[in-house]
Amino acid sequence: MTMLNKDMTLCISLSARPSNNGTRFHNHLYEALGLNWIYKAFAPTDLAQAIAGVRGLGIRGCAISMPYKEDVIALVDRMDASARAIDSVNTIVNDDGVLTAYNTDYSAIATLIARNGIDPRSSVLLRGSGGMAKATAAAFRDGGFTDLTIVARNEARGRALADQYGFDWRPDPGEATADVLVNVTPIGMAGGAEEHALSFSEQAIAASTVVFDVVALPAETPVVAAGRAAGATVITGAEVATLQALEQFVLYTGVRPTRVQVQAAEDYMRSGA
Amino acid sequence: MTMLNKDMTLCISLSARPSNNGTRFHNHLYEALGLNWIYKAFAPTDLAQAIAGVRGLGIRGCAISMPYKEDVIALVDRMDASARAIDSVNTIVNDDGVLTAYNTDYSAIATLIARNGIDPRSSVLLRGSGGMAKATAAAFRDGGFTDLTIVARNEARGRALADQYGFDWRPDPGEATADVLVNVTPIGMAGGAEEHALSFSEQAIAASTVVFDVVALPAETPVVAAGRAAGATVITGAEVATLQALEQFVLYTGVRPTRVQVQAAEDYMRSGA
Repeated sequence: MTMLNKDMTLCISLSARPSNNGTRFHNHLYEALGLNWIYKAFAPTDLAQAIAGVRGLGIRGCAISMPYKEDVIALVDRMDASARAIDSVNTIVNDDGVLTAYNTDYSAIATLIARNGIDPRSSVLLRGSGGMAKATAAAFRDGGFTDLTIVARNEARGRALADQYGFDWRPDPGEATADVLVNVTPIGMAGGAEEHALSFSEQAIAASTVVFDVVALPAETPVVAAGRAAGATVITGAEVATLQALEQFVLYTGVRPTRVQVQAAEDYMRSGA
Repeated sequence: MTMLNKDMTLCISLSARPSNNGTRFHNHLYEALGLNWIYKAFAPTDLAQAIAGVRGLGIRGCAISMPYKEDVIALVDRMDASARAIDSVNTIVNDDGVLTAYNTDYSAIATLIARNGIDPRSSVLLRGSGGMAKATAAAFRDGGFTDLTIVARNEARGRALADQYGFDWRPDPGEATADVLVNVTPIGMAGGAEEHALSFSEQAIAASTVVFDVVALPAETPVVAAGRAAGATVITGAEVATLQALEQFVLYTGVRPTRVQVQAAEDYMRSGA
């Protein structure tokens, strides 16, 4: 690591239960790019005081995780369109005391929808009703998709999410099929209760052209593997995670690392998770 | 350096014009002692917000330098006797959100007076009327010294300081002599206008038993060299600086490094000043 010195620009994260991912990813890139920057995760004792500290200490960037993504809205000066689209913030940039809030999860999903050329006329089944499901639904809505069904067992949350973006809701996938299958639930997540489960049926996967799993760990969830085997276009949660972290990095530093540098930072990040 | 990680305990400094000294000194000791801690200097944009950040981010320790040593009093929860003695703070310790203010300059000077066995019945000439002169005068007063004269060209400040601690004042040293000569002005300071000047006359030095220069750079100021040559007991500003930084380190971490470790940290600090 670069020797620590007074002139380092600090970026941080605020989360009730920080992981080491951000700290490892960003510091590795700072080192690789020769930036005199430093990154550290914090579990704040008080959100408002922590954000005051971002201003008062001149902290350049601040990632926001659970459970602060909505509460922080009242504490920033400007909401970028990405944060406004879902009323949720995961990134704050401090420009000389002016705090602008972004949501790079939303931006990353929107970018991946566009980059993979998914036709907005496609039918979409989207499982999930949490914060990330909201970011995903909004990205599809803003990509021009209208034929989308939210699949969520929690009727209140599922209906609310569907209504917010003008979509339909159903409690479970049943026999439903669609061109695009999107999982934003913990089904298939490493270490979870449904680690080995498919978030969509074999039949639905066979009938689809795109399988998009927002679960980031493992990169190859059961539904991703099944989608790949069935010849569908596959988008993984690992791609979302990488892209959103990269966009945070670019927003903070103004520097865009190469693909090789990002891959090295990710490998380093995972080696110490 | 230790690889950066989310669990590191952060200590900082707040100063309008930070030097690299604290960052280098503390980080070197953390590394030497295997502490998962990190230290960085900040030039805050707003003192109250920065102190809010100390609370909200759970920053463990905070050194306070010019021009915040008095303003910060209103922002802490408790004043240790060392800070109360001179209404000036150079150290804050955060115990689970309770901020206690200390002044380790005062403590270090008091310790050096005691450690060198200076007789409280000695007569003392003390040059200077700034914040450090106040810490020095208070340490002598609290050590039981009563025969002390503040020497300061600025009459308002010199008289105010003398009156506060029950001492005398005079505008310049003139022909005065005393058992103990104490310099707390920039005379003899490296790079200063009076770098090569003696803060006390040859006659006064010859008549003294103790020469105490609070100027830290260089360690061997002209008055220190002259005092040593005259056979006086000599106390240097470098000793004050080391001791006060060490006390900050102990207050923050609860760990007392060895003399060799402190020396190594100081050498490292100076190599990058």
